[in-house]
Amino acid sequence: MNNSATSESEVPCGAPTLSDRMQKTKTAITRHCRELTADLGFTGFTIENVCERVGISRRTFFNYFPSKLDAVFGHESDALPEGSIERFMAARPEGIEGISPTLLADLVELVLERLSIDENEIVSTHGFFTMAHREPELLQHMVQTGPKKEAKFRELIASREGVDPQDPRLSSLMHILKHTMLQAIDAYVAGSGKRSLSEEFLDLMSQVQSIMGQQLRRTND
Amino acid sequence: MNNSATSESEVPCGAPTLSDRMQKTKTAITRHCRELTADLGFTGFTIENVCERVGISRRTFFNYFPSKLDAVFGHESDALPEGSIERFMAARPEGIEGISPTLLADLVELVLERLSIDENEIVSTHGFFTMAHREPELLQHMVQTGPKKEAKFRELIASREGVDPQDPRLSSLMHILKHTMLQAIDAYVAGSGKRSLSEEFLDLMSQVQSIMGQQLRRTND
Repeated sequence: MNNSATSESEVPCGAPTLSDRMQKTKTAITRHCRELTADLGFTGFTIENVCERVGISRRTFFNYFPSKLDAVFGHESDALPEGSIERFMAARPEGIEGISPTLLADLVELVLERLSIDENEIVSTHGFFTMAHREPELLQHMVQTGPKKEAKFRELIASREGVDPQDPRLSSLMHILKHTMLQAIDAYVAGSGKRSLSEEFLDLMSQVQSIMGQQLRRTND
Repeated sequence: MNNSATSESEVPCGAPTLSDRMQKTKTAITRHCRELTADLGFTGFTIENVCERVGISRRTFFNYFPSKLDAVFGHESDALPEGSIERFMAARPEGIEGISPTLLADLVELVLERLSIDENEIVSTHGFFTMAHREPELLQHMVQTGPKKEAKFRELIASREGVDPQDPRLSSLMHILKHTMLQAIDAYVAGSGKRSLSEEFLDLMSQVQSIMGQQLRRTND
């Protein structure tokens, strides 16, 4: 009677209400799935192998994730500390039409909150995503879900700003922030953590700002 | 005696010396490969099917491309008009240390030269890449070759600027330009070509500049 399939993540996404113990189990499932993927490839192990390592039953596994694919990616709702999104939504200055003058700063704040949760966790997730590019099934999943997740977040920003979710500035901002976050993780790993992830990120962001502050066209050629 | 495999693109990359007739044949091979991929999926047709459509022999096919995978992507050396790279390399102002104050403008010029070659060709290539994301083998190929191509171009810029190819500003600039170029193509298609690709691109770039000109942190909260 195991409800195996339903690949889409329509699972107990009310993750904030999970008890500490349940949160630990969920994290352990994902961690072991990733280790097994690294060691044996994504097709090289079964859900039973995961259950054995975590010390849970198959039935318990399916209480957390509807499939191995979902388990290896984990739940996105874990990605931001509680209240971050709410704070972001409330931070828009009043009496403004269109894009807030603090939009960049408020998004940067959101990234900084995320980067400050647990640096080791972030670095290991980054390592997993890099590895996942070599696994056809995982790659396909990321290519499909990545844009959906981005669209969802873009709608959130658009609703705060009262602009069209297709406004190209939103997509550009998100791309720049994401790319800079990945660069910050690389720099953090390369520097063996001498500076915090947040410091790396802020430093890189101001470098992007300064280079994007150059003139777009040569004036006189 | 057909030398089938060698998936890596170590082919006659001296493409600039191809005669007009040969250039047409090469382009036709790629175009038919893409049409067949769209209709039947990448695994749904053979090199023989392509040859039949183009009206060439199998031996001729292999004079142009070492594999079906290479043929469907075509040659990158076609992407920029002749002399563009040379002009870019020569455009660095003299007497400068480190990143040129015209780096952004010179890269924008390079993009504009590329966008002005043939708008239809660019739009159809974009459509192909979008579709290719749904083909596991093509996706895998893009994920592997994309970063390599980017690294090569980054090295070129770094050598012009006399900075480390790992300088994060180069990677950021390239990402922003690429993302904006893709946005410009979308806008061009959505607007049915009312404005040129170049106009769309320049408009989007100045929007990115203005939003990235916001303050990075709130000053007083």
